[in-house]
Amino acid sequence: MEKAPVRICMIGAGRVGKNHSRALARVPGGKIVALVDPVADILAATGDEFGIEARFASLEEALDKVAFDAVIITTPTFTHRDLALTAAAHGKHVFLEKPMALDLAECDAIIEGTRRAGVVLQIGFMRRFSPEFVAAMHRIEAGEIGRPMMIKSTTNGPGLPPAWARDLRTSNGMLAEVNSHDWDSIRWLMGSNYERVYTEVANFKGAALGVDTPHFYDNAVVNMRFESGSLGTIAGICPCGYGYDARVEIIGEKGILQIGELQGEAIVVCTDRDHGLVTPVIRTWGERFAWGYIHELEHFVDCTRTGKPSRATGEDGRWAVAGVLAATRSLLEERPVTLREVLEADAADAAPWIGKAGGA
Amino acid sequence: MEKAPVRICMIGAGRVGKNHSRALARVPGGKIVALVDPVADILAATGDEFGIEARFASLEEALDKVAFDAVIITTPTFTHRDLALTAAAHGKHVFLEKPMALDLAECDAIIEGTRRAGVVLQIGFMRRFSPEFVAAMHRIEAGEIGRPMMIKSTTNGPGLPPAWARDLRTSNGMLAEVNSHDWDSIRWLMGSNYERVYTEVANFKGAALGVDTPHFYDNAVVNMRFESGSLGTIAGICPCGYGYDARVEIIGEKGILQIGELQGEAIVVCTDRDHGLVTPVIRTWGERFAWGYIHELEHFVDCTRTGKPSRATGEDGRWAVAGVLAATRSLLEERPVTLREVLEADAADAAPWIGKAGGA
Amino acid sequence: MEKAPVRICMIGAGRVGKNHSRALARVPGGKIVALVDPVADILAATGDEFGIEARFASLEEALDKVAFDAVIITTPTFTHRDLALTAAAHGKHVFLEKPMALDLAECDAIIEGTRRAGVVLQIGFMRRFSPEFVAAMHRIEAGEIGRPMMIKSTTNGPGLPPAWARDLRTSNGMLAEVNSHDWDSIRWLMGSNYERVYTEVANFKGAALGVDTPHFYDNAVVNMRFESGSLGTIAGICPCGYGYDARVEIIGEKGILQIGELQGEAIVVCTDRDHGLVTPVIRTWGERFAWGYIHELEHFVDCTRTGKPSRATGEDGRWAVAGVLAATRSLLEERPVTLREVLEADAADAAPWIGKAGGA
Amino acid sequence: MEKAPVRICMIGAGRVGKNHSRALARVPGGKIVALVDPVADILAATGDEFGIEARFASLEEALDKVAFDAVIITTPTFTHRDLALTAAAHGKHVFLEKPMALDLAECDAIIEGTRRAGVVLQIGFMRRFSPEFVAAMHRIEAGEIGRPMMIKSTTNGPGLPPAWARDLRTSNGMLAEVNSHDWDSIRWLMGSNYERVYTEVANFKGAALGVDTPHFYDNAVVNMRFESGSLGTIAGICPCGYGYDARVEIIGEKGILQIGELQGEAIVVCTDRDHGLVTPVIRTWGERFAWGYIHELEHFVDCTRTGKPSRATGEDGRWAVAGVLAATRSLLEERPVTLREVLEADAADAAPWIGKAGGA
Repeated sequence: MEKAPVRICMIGAGRVGKNHSRALARVPGGKIVALVDPVADILAATGDEFGIEARFASLEEALDKVAFDAVIITTPTFTHRDLALTAAAHGKHVFLEKPMALDLAECDAIIEGTRRAGVVLQIGFMRRFSPEFVAAMHRIEAGEIGRPMMIKSTTNGPGLPPAWARDLRTSNGMLAEVNSHDWDSIRWLMGSNYERVYTEVANFKGAALGVDTPHFYDNAVVNMRFESGSLGTIAGICPCGYGYDARVEIIGEKGILQIGELQGEAIVVCTDRDHGLVTPVIRTWGERFAWGYIHELEHFVDCTRTGKPSRATGEDGRWAVAGVLAATRSLLEERPVTLREVLEADAADAAPWIGKAGGA
Repeated sequence: MEKAPVRICMIGAGRVGKNHSRALARVPGGKIVALVDPVADILAATGDEFGIEARFASLEEALDKVAFDAVIITTPTFTHRDLALTAAAHGKHVFLEKPMALDLAECDAIIEGTRRAGVVLQIGFMRRFSPEFVAAMHRIEAGEIGRPMMIKSTTNGPGLPPAWARDLRTSNGMLAEVNSHDWDSIRWLMGSNYERVYTEVANFKGAALGVDTPHFYDNAVVNMRFESGSLGTIAGICPCGYGYDARVEIIGEKGILQIGELQGEAIVVCTDRDHGLVTPVIRTWGERFAWGYIHELEHFVDCTRTGKPSRATGEDGRWAVAGVLAATRSLLEERPVTLREVLEADAADAAPWIGKAGGA
Repeated sequence: MEKAPVRICMIGAGRVGKNHSRALARVPGGKIVALVDPVADILAATGDEFGIEARFASLEEALDKVAFDAVIITTPTFTHRDLALTAAAHGKHVFLEKPMALDLAECDAIIEGTRRAGVVLQIGFMRRFSPEFVAAMHRIEAGEIGRPMMIKSTTNGPGLPPAWARDLRTSNGMLAEVNSHDWDSIRWLMGSNYERVYTEVANFKGAALGVDTPHFYDNAVVNMRFESGSLGTIAGICPCGYGYDARVEIIGEKGILQIGELQGEAIVVCTDRDHGLVTPVIRTWGERFAWGYIHELEHFVDCTRTGKPSRATGEDGRWAVAGVLAATRSLLEERPVTLREVLEADAADAAPWIGKAGGA
Repeated sequence: MEKAPVRICMIGAGRVGKNHSRALARVPGGKIVALVDPVADILAATGDEFGIEARFASLEEALDKVAFDAVIITTPTFTHRDLALTAAAHGKHVFLEKPMALDLAECDAIIEGTRRAGVVLQIGFMRRFSPEFVAAMHRIEAGEIGRPMMIKSTTNGPGLPPAWARDLRTSNGMLAEVNSHDWDSIRWLMGSNYERVYTEVANFKGAALGVDTPHFYDNAVVNMRFESGSLGTIAGICPCGYGYDARVEIIGEKGILQIGELQGEAIVVCTDRDHGLVTPVIRTWGERFAWGYIHELEHFVDCTRTGKPSRATGEDGRWAVAGVLAATRSLLEERPVTLREVLEADAADAAPWIGKAGGA
């Protein structure tokens, strides 16, 4: 017999909220029953687009008026802790977009709050559910390329992030907002935690785009050592303009494995031999990870039904935040920074740049 | 407000029925309310797998017991006409897997029956809904490669089709069962009907596989002239073993356009420099056309709701059957055959090989 | 100790003569000592470009004035027989560009003339020496893809051939001048002779280019059966505009093997996500087969030194001509034509269209 | 009229000497007239293989016995200075394999010695002559991808280098011996000098291979800032086992450009749909840069004839050495190191690890 659908309150009606609503429409068993956004216009437009009638300016209001089982939180990072804790306190399962939170203290609060409430907590690391990442992970675990020695992870995004998402003080900036996925997936694929990171950044387009935020950067390369002794790099550029570019390369003692490619749809055209072959590039993250988004929500629906823990845990989210904090400290202090420095510091000391502008 | 879902009776619980049920689960607005299959075991297994409780041995029984809006017919070709006519006579919209029918008289009956009943008729040409085919068609229509001069369409399938589907007498054989999509998409992409075809076939694996059906072939190449003066080839091999291989290449006065590739998931591995790089191949048609199947059923759901005619019509299905008949006649008579010979012949004369074994 | 270089008389100072001179400069042991061309301007320009001082309007003159060991004949097809026979009669080894000759009688004369003179005869089938063709052939012979079932060979050239090379009467037209390589390499790779061919042709660009030659075509698809029972297609378009496109696909009982690709240099660029990735296409045959040309001449130099027979024999050249004749008859008579019809016919009957315009 | 060939003394009869001899055989105008190697067996074998009769144990002996115009020095790095200075002192043009020398003082001596002698000095940076690098550079200079923001350069080699080439004390180790080309080409392609570098290294295979050299590493990632403000990474693994992997990716303000790929010959095979598509990987540096080696020697021959300065200068070689020294200091001191520290230091202070074991 058919199971009752998991009733979901979608928090955030912007770009990510729409992407997740679109993905959820392809997930049998999940159903959006309420939409929350403080911005009336966006709330109305997205509500109309997805046929969601129950619309609210706040989570509290939704909790008051509609029965649901779970929340999907797609709002800016600095809102994550409070929303997650409120939802958990009302017994709602929590799906939380990356990055998990601004600092480790917030991560700890979310982990503890959901644990105490006995609800599922899943972080939006959809790459862990993307078919080629899943297949790659199986092959690495099966020993196909031997012990991993080096990983290179690239995520370049086409457009300038919103103001809060490119400001160290309100979001930890690009390494957090664009490259959170790299932080998570390198740790996952390598089967080891990062131990030391060094970051170089550059600001090429800020001035032309009118960005005068302190420490703004649009290019970053981080290299790192893992606890296992292996090496890695994360490279990010945003805005890069040319597409959405997410690729990973892992080299083990026995061989190389590459995940992802620039090419989008399998179409090749040539109409000018001096110009050459033209093939679509992947344009957006929604296109790149279409199946990843579907499968991660399918997993979340399954976890909420069965009570099984999610495969993308709060601990995973916390590690990604820790990597960001270490890399940010490195770029500010122009020296390699160990994870231990971040993990053992007080919250205020670990990321002294946060909140200095008063939030968004 | 949310629209009531389109209630669907899935006819056929085998491989294609399961594939379409899987796709339909990702189509918001469509819902399987009944499952029909004369084979009890398959009916039970598929019913369980997809959580469909209303299960019947025949369409008539389902019509009698359950309310629904549409049927999806996935049973063998020789059953298509009767099932489609019965459904239409009861006012049900009809989604009909390719090939449409065994001969042109059957096609005409289906077209006429659905027209008279005022129901939607859609043929399962999912390539017309597959993102890269859709994008390619837009680019051709926009004139990007100029007037099409030549098209080459390949479909090779991994495994041996069931007995009825490899026998000229019960199905028109491989060119119908495996290559129907090629017949449809070359006509669609070229914007012209085929006018003359010539077929060469070979039988390489039949003996080893114990196939002794008369005129059995597992390799075919057809070349053809279109009414527009352009040229084309269809090549098919089944079983080919190495994967599911569906690629199209179109060359126009201004350039070349290729659709599809052998590569599956974007993973590259190399662990032995004497062996080389290894990347997944597309293994099955379900994998290759995952989005095509979702989008064609989304379109069907939309047509049944709005009454709009489908983009994959009975006329399209009839043309594909006509191509198969001409090509089959060519291989039997070892000469080029014009479409006119088939289109103007009586049904019995057009395909004298059909039904000679008494059907399946 | 160093061997004396093989002294070569290059006959033909045009595009092919220059290509071969360029390749020969990279072949240790071969040296052009004379250049022959009846057109004074071309003779002077090419002589200057390659630093060849001994220049003559005719082979006879060169024979009279300069000592050499071998000729490379790169002039139009209708001159091949006489030049090859003259060279052989003077004891010179003969490298002969494809197509070997206009008809089978000419081929027989060349084979016999060189045999009697005891000189090497090599036909310019450089694909047999191109590294990826050689590697593919080894893998096929080693049984990697099993017994070959189907081959598809494509050669599309960018520009309009000269008048003599697109006229059936003076050259057998495009299937000979552009697709000779396909005729040779499919027979070589399949390990079997073609037995029956059927040709469809089209003329898309002739009118716009001012070509009014009877039976001119710029598009052709030939499908065929081999003596082994396997199938094949040759497709050709010239001028295709978009590049030089030479690809082969072979499917055997155990798998598929593809040779060649559209991509030229390994550079990928993307500067516009709506336009997509751009990579160089192969622009010319000289670029595509740079190593093939070097290696075939290296082989020829080696054969002339050692007296070993060439791996691209007169018999191979003759078979390619026979394929062209059968395919041309097929397009003129709009029916499948067996090779036996051509092989057993008198020369005049085999190709009645040749010479009807009086030659070039 | 034909020019007299440039007479070359090849110094070093090992792997690189053979590779360059092979390339030189395809360079019209260059001719090896003497071969030098202190190891009698290798001298004999290579002399026989390339038909070089004049063979000597030392450059001095060759200078004494044979007339020549230029030397190609392919011996270990620690021999470069003395050989280059001796050759220059005798008025011979100097082609010097990378890395140029062990430290900046040696580089300065070579630059000064050749300058004073008025002979050509070319460093073996064949990537500057490899067709796809040349084409990429033209496109970057033409502004196609805008101002370069980030470069990633990878060179992984299949096998373990010889003892002297993996020991910091005798060669500066892998970053010098394997990744010299990266140091040169990133500086060339970015149009800027590196300014600061940070290195992480790992040793995964040393123990199993019996390597106990202090500071041995087989994996390295360097990230860096350029004087222009742009960023870069060099990654190297040796032995990586899976092939010879040299790829570069450059992202500018307007787009991305990739140079090189893993794929070798254009052959794709699939015989098992569970295994997937297989295509040759590039196996060796000789295969990867076949045309680069030919063109660099062609350029050297041209420079020696015309007296034009080479496009791969001693200054370029010196910068690559400086990068290696900074990156090596970084890995030893576990901190970012500026190029200024190296460029302004005394030779002994710049690279205190060199020669500590007494040389080779």
